[in-house]
Amino acid sequence: MSIKLLIACPDQKGIVYEVTKFVFENGGNIIDSQQHSLGLDSHFFMRLDIDPNDMNFTSQELSEKFSAIAKKFSMNFKFSQGAKNMAVLVSKYDHCLYDILQKHKYGDIKVNIPLIISNHPDLRHVADSFGIKYFYCPIENDKFSSKEEAKASQEAQILKELKPYNIDFIVMARYMQILSKNFISNYPNSIINVHHSFLPSFKGANPYHQAYEKGVKIIGATAHYATEDLDMGPIIAQDVAPVSYKDSVEDYISQGRDIEELVFSKAIKAHADDKIIVHENRTIVFD
Amino acid sequence: MSIKLLIACPDQKGIVYEVTKFVFENGGNIIDSQQHSLGLDSHFFMRLDIDPNDMNFTSQELSEKFSAIAKKFSMNFKFSQGAKNMAVLVSKYDHCLYDILQKHKYGDIKVNIPLIISNHPDLRHVADSFGIKYFYCPIENDKFSSKEEAKASQEAQILKELKPYNIDFIVMARYMQILSKNFISNYPNSIINVHHSFLPSFKGANPYHQAYEKGVKIIGATAHYATEDLDMGPIIAQDVAPVSYKDSVEDYISQGRDIEELVFSKAIKAHADDKIIVHENRTIVFD
Amino acid sequence: MSIKLLIACPDQKGIVYEVTKFVFENGGNIIDSQQHSLGLDSHFFMRLDIDPNDMNFTSQELSEKFSAIAKKFSMNFKFSQGAKNMAVLVSKYDHCLYDILQKHKYGDIKVNIPLIISNHPDLRHVADSFGIKYFYCPIENDKFSSKEEAKASQEAQILKELKPYNIDFIVMARYMQILSKNFISNYPNSIINVHHSFLPSFKGANPYHQAYEKGVKIIGATAHYATEDLDMGPIIAQDVAPVSYKDSVEDYISQGRDIEELVFSKAIKAHADDKIIVHENRTIVFD
Amino acid sequence: MSIKLLIACPDQKGIVYEVTKFVFENGGNIIDSQQHSLGLDSHFFMRLDIDPNDMNFTSQELSEKFSAIAKKFSMNFKFSQGAKNMAVLVSKYDHCLYDILQKHKYGDIKVNIPLIISNHPDLRHVADSFGIKYFYCPIENDKFSSKEEAKASQEAQILKELKPYNIDFIVMARYMQILSKNFISNYPNSIINVHHSFLPSFKGANPYHQAYEKGVKIIGATAHYATEDLDMGPIIAQDVAPVSYKDSVEDYISQGRDIEELVFSKAIKAHADDKIIVHENRTIVFD
Repeated sequence: MSIKLLIACPDQKGIVYEVTKFVFENGGNIIDSQQHSLGLDSHFFMRLDIDPNDMNFTSQELSEKFSAIAKKFSMNFKFSQGAKNMAVLVSKYDHCLYDILQKHKYGDIKVNIPLIISNHPDLRHVADSFGIKYFYCPIENDKFSSKEEAKASQEAQILKELKPYNIDFIVMARYMQILSKNFISNYPNSIINVHHSFLPSFKGANPYHQAYEKGVKIIGATAHYATEDLDMGPIIAQDVAPVSYKDSVEDYISQGRDIEELVFSKAIKAHADDKIIVHENRTIVFD
Repeated sequence: MSIKLLIACPDQKGIVYEVTKFVFENGGNIIDSQQHSLGLDSHFFMRLDIDPNDMNFTSQELSEKFSAIAKKFSMNFKFSQGAKNMAVLVSKYDHCLYDILQKHKYGDIKVNIPLIISNHPDLRHVADSFGIKYFYCPIENDKFSSKEEAKASQEAQILKELKPYNIDFIVMARYMQILSKNFISNYPNSIINVHHSFLPSFKGANPYHQAYEKGVKIIGATAHYATEDLDMGPIIAQDVAPVSYKDSVEDYISQGRDIEELVFSKAIKAHADDKIIVHENRTIVFD
Repeated sequence: MSIKLLIACPDQKGIVYEVTKFVFENGGNIIDSQQHSLGLDSHFFMRLDIDPNDMNFTSQELSEKFSAIAKKFSMNFKFSQGAKNMAVLVSKYDHCLYDILQKHKYGDIKVNIPLIISNHPDLRHVADSFGIKYFYCPIENDKFSSKEEAKASQEAQILKELKPYNIDFIVMARYMQILSKNFISNYPNSIINVHHSFLPSFKGANPYHQAYEKGVKIIGATAHYATEDLDMGPIIAQDVAPVSYKDSVEDYISQGRDIEELVFSKAIKAHADDKIIVHENRTIVFD
Repeated sequence: MSIKLLIACPDQKGIVYEVTKFVFENGGNIIDSQQHSLGLDSHFFMRLDIDPNDMNFTSQELSEKFSAIAKKFSMNFKFSQGAKNMAVLVSKYDHCLYDILQKHKYGDIKVNIPLIISNHPDLRHVADSFGIKYFYCPIENDKFSSKEEAKASQEAQILKELKPYNIDFIVMARYMQILSKNFISNYPNSIINVHHSFLPSFKGANPYHQAYEKGVKIIGATAHYATEDLDMGPIIAQDVAPVSYKDSVEDYISQGRDIEELVFSKAIKAHADDKIIVHENRTIVFD
């Protein structure tokens, strides 16, 4: 199983040389690399996909060995190896859930999915049919003095449930709740949401209605990292579909489901395969 | 040359029947028709493309004959026949201009283009090479006490110049001036602008820079009718292209030119062929 | 529930008039119509979507009443109303199956699905989870003296099983068998197959391998009516996706699944909604 | 102006390291690199974009210095720097010609265009308006005893005309002649043709007519390197556009022009920017 290395730092001469020397001297073979900068006064981004070959180290060990180079070039970097652990948040819509479980089963999305968490009991049968644990974690407004407290309690429970699974990232498969700043801070740039509009247009509620009112000729969907600003996090993937004057809002919703699935799974694949660097609220998504 | 009929009215039973009976009894053959409503309590939209055959009337005469039906169903309607007269506004960018002149020459855009008007002298050679009159009409800020006056004077000159040509509609081929409310009121729903963003995102100046800053993964262009609200008029056509992390703003601008050309020419074709009805700031664009 | 009327005939003056008169006089309201011909010496195609309103007849009764008009204009025509009965053929791949069952559940594909038939037992659990009957009908080569006989026997069983359900059309959700001429003749222009190439390129086996060998930059999928000539029936829907030099055949297969689902469901929707006329081995697919 | 390096060879450990060491030790800064292989038993492809910085050598000198590394890894490689010299072949259609001259002027296609060559005199005015030399070189069937001889003579003249301009590559902007094997052998993998179909479908004459007859729902265009097998050379770029039942062959031709321009300019940009490696009749096109 290959090792991925992601690097971001100010550009300088010799970075690629020193990094690839490190790989070579430690016995690895680079099977794919991409690197880009806008020149010496700009930022440098790199991704390596390394066949370990004779490179018998854990990601942790590699990180330690690499630290001198990283320091020299003021790098942010990350080694990773092996399938990540991904948790899924859902509510009642199941199309994105089915799509990623299907793609997971076919091997298109290479992760472990130890559990699916929902604020509703409805989709347990889907989790069951794919042999994945379903954790029903409702927001119990009636048991708390405020909605905020009820939600905080629910999020605390989710965090607790996630803990033993060593979750690397979380995907919101049309999870119809806004996660709190506190919750998100536990998984920085590691929670992927799908919004059913071509952001930055039509943020917030009912984007297909907004699109209809505006009279756009193309609708879209956007997968992005959740941040505390609603629908404003770094964009990972977007896709669109044409609409015609005959289409109603219901038709937009229907057509939109396909686009939501496409951008959501595309974003998940990119994250799972360590192809994303977040830099200044934008993403570098390597091919 | 075929006759086009556009109709919008509240839906009722029997509209299609009465309209097509009218065509039949006056000797025409309908070669293409499209009609749509959302049911009896909604609006009805229709377009007919009629081979006149034995229908020997002018659009004017047909309109008069049709008035009883139109009144019965409270219709907005328009008969038209023959190529429209289209004026082109340009500044210094020539890509949209070249594209539509090429498509005009190939017969893809079926209009007459009696003149091209510009606030700059630069593109006269393009007009010359296609044998079209070029009217240079600068905004002479130095001759007036305010920019507003200079512009009002220029617009008045343009309107005067257009008059003898019986212009049906105007297209802004990357014309870098904002037309005044007064100017637009002379050509309601008859001035087509192309904006280099996927509206409603990134209105106004430097949309590609805005798109870059936001980190969208797809850029777009939008052709719309100019209204007094900048970049807010009814959208006619939109298209998009993917961008990658390697692309600079200059790359966006470069790739954007192709999309601008595509949506601009698509919108012009639709307008020239009487395929557009504007209803509540949205367009019905028939196929 | 609306009534659909499809018409194909040689063009003449007055067809639209007589057809819409018929609808009006029988109490219906046309909510959508599309009609096209290339002029009086060519063929005429029309689709009407009629809100029955005061039109209290069955499709059968309407057909009888309409027969005089149909005869006058030498029409092929079909009235239909209500959801069609659709059978699904599958083998072991389940992605197209899941996709259409999902879309069916969401109401995007408006049909009845009384049964799913397979030559393998593997996907029974999928049928079960959507509450649809699963008929396992293997090709028992060991029980027959030839493969042909085994297959003929299996097809006979399928036909027998379909009979009581009054099946209107059959969809092959990656059914990995070639249907015999005899089988197809029972459902002319009513069996939809999805082939994983952009036809007519890469017919037959392993189209993604063929595409890889050829070095195309875009892969595709095609939904078409099954005819006795393999992968040569009238094309209903096609879609494509870009591939890069990094993609292996396995990546093509993975990306291809999404395109297969899109064209397959698009074709099913068009057929279910009576939007398709087959004419000279080509399809007219109304919007 | 940056230096490009393209490399193809059997994969081994240490290639990236040795190549980037070479760049570093000679004073260059790598601003973009892409490299890919399928592992140690497969082929290795790489492209470097190098800011020369302190690297004061010509491509020729770099090639010599690099030869030891190249030999060690059995590489095919090429250094290049500076704009290439591109010749254009045209006949009478001018849309691709206008498009690339426009893109050249805007700086989107970074090449020198010393001359345009045609078998017809018609497009001289286009060349003139962009200030480029036009060489009219007819096929004079009446002066020779056979068509073959007339064509061989014309091709010989073209080759002679090209010689002093040190032409790097040739683009066929809808040049309506088939180049001979002999002519092509002078510019191996350096002649770009655009064919108006989605190859491998609809090779040869009248591809839009073929597409119409077949009833495809999407038409396409393909840019590829010319080889002695007509429309069979390595594919560089492809694009498509949807068509509807209303579209005639003339509509296909009209819509096709836009796609032809898009794929043609895309292929030219890739070649001009040294982004293409041809390997086993397929192209690796770096991003």
